[in-house]
Amino acid sequence: MLENKNEKIDKVPGTDYEIIQNRERFSYGTDAIFLSEFAKPKGIVVDLGTGTGIIPIRLVGRNHKIEKVYGIEIQDEVYDMARRSVELNHIDKIEILNMDLKDLPEKFGKEAVDTVVTNPPYMKSGSALVNEDDNFAISRHEISCNLEDIIRVSSHILKSNGKFFMVHRPDRLVDIIYHMRNYRLEPKRLRFVYPKVGKKSNLILIEGSKYGKVDLKMENPLIIYNEDGSYTEDIMKIYYKDKE
Amino acid sequence: MLENKNEKIDKVPGTDYEIIQNRERFSYGTDAIFLSEFAKPKGIVVDLGTGTGIIPIRLVGRNHKIEKVYGIEIQDEVYDMARRSVELNHIDKIEILNMDLKDLPEKFGKEAVDTVVTNPPYMKSGSALVNEDDNFAISRHEISCNLEDIIRVSSHILKSNGKFFMVHRPDRLVDIIYHMRNYRLEPKRLRFVYPKVGKKSNLILIEGSKYGKVDLKMENPLIIYNEDGSYTEDIMKIYYKDKE
Repeated sequence: MLENKNEKIDKVPGTDYEIIQNRERFSYGTDAIFLSEFAKPKGIVVDLGTGTGIIPIRLVGRNHKIEKVYGIEIQDEVYDMARRSVELNHIDKIEILNMDLKDLPEKFGKEAVDTVVTNPPYMKSGSALVNEDDNFAISRHEISCNLEDIIRVSSHILKSNGKFFMVHRPDRLVDIIYHMRNYRLEPKRLRFVYPKVGKKSNLILIEGSKYGKVDLKMENPLIIYNEDGSYTEDIMKIYYKDKE
Repeated sequence: MLENKNEKIDKVPGTDYEIIQNRERFSYGTDAIFLSEFAKPKGIVVDLGTGTGIIPIRLVGRNHKIEKVYGIEIQDEVYDMARRSVELNHIDKIEILNMDLKDLPEKFGKEAVDTVVTNPPYMKSGSALVNEDDNFAISRHEISCNLEDIIRVSSHILKSNGKFFMVHRPDRLVDIIYHMRNYRLEPKRLRFVYPKVGKKSNLILIEGSKYGKVDLKMENPLIIYNEDGSYTEDIMKIYYKDKE
């Protein structure tokens, strides 16, 4: 299963599954874990920019209402890692596809899926010195797709009343909300993640509903560290709770 | 100065000024104080829906870059109270106008003011049983104007690079952001107010800039109460600090 000296196998928190990570190049972040916890997936699920495959694997490991998850990944190397992780766990419900998410409308057609989840690149391209050929950069910068592409494609493939779940940075909140409403993915639920009490938020979790009516629910904040640097109870629950 | 047995004169926190309030009908809320603290007014300032006049009076009492503040109030009774409070303090810089804010584009013209501040009605009209003739209801429900009216009018009268400051409820965040961007008041600064650590936010403070570029700064949260029910240091500073 391991094909590179930097690869290792880790447990997927809160599941019986394992995942292949590359110490130097590809490992999942807390962002992906928070998103998989925030999302309420069902039916046919698509994960846009699946990376290591952490989100599909954790979703299937914790949720039994899922029929099938497609993990979409444009980068060959991490696509292959994700594919091997799915094989390692013998999960029939997950299929990793090595493709550009902008081709999804053609693949799935209009209003075909129940749930979209995505942990997209956070940084605008051109905002820093970026080697645009680098896989590492593609995961972090809007090189192969931008925020509007992700929202447009998601809206296209989602059924009426289908759900969209995304993790992103608070400084993109205006773009996120503006494009979601423009593409008829009305924001319904919003949660801010704070590193500590009193600090600025560094992540947001947002849920949208295709053709949903205007009705935003703000959730209580998710705080990561206690004053003494230990994890809060909320975080301990996410990482160490038993499978449902 | 007092013209009704329910009226009383209170100190305006953090200033040398006083304000007339009506115990039963019109008194300012913490929302208005938070907004006057969050805002960075200069030049010609317009306060949409000024109510008791608390915002113009506190802004002038704490800020010397203000040339003039117009407080706009549609309701006769509270307009008259605000006018008398300005007179009581002998503040030449403030003028309270008894008019519908929808007539402001005609009064001021296009791109005429530097700053707009507003603590508008929070509730959508029709969302509850409301007596639409009641002044009390007009202050709280979108009867005489709605959120889009406020943003449209503000954008019209603001100069290029003029600033817009609003306090509102988090459940209206999507509408606020969507309309602000549509009317070219790009959101630049956003602060959430929380009653206590771990609770849901119940207020937001937002700054927009006319024709501003996309660049949202999230501020650290403003938390009102400590665990033991006492005010936090942030709140004590707002209410009890000396004039600058």
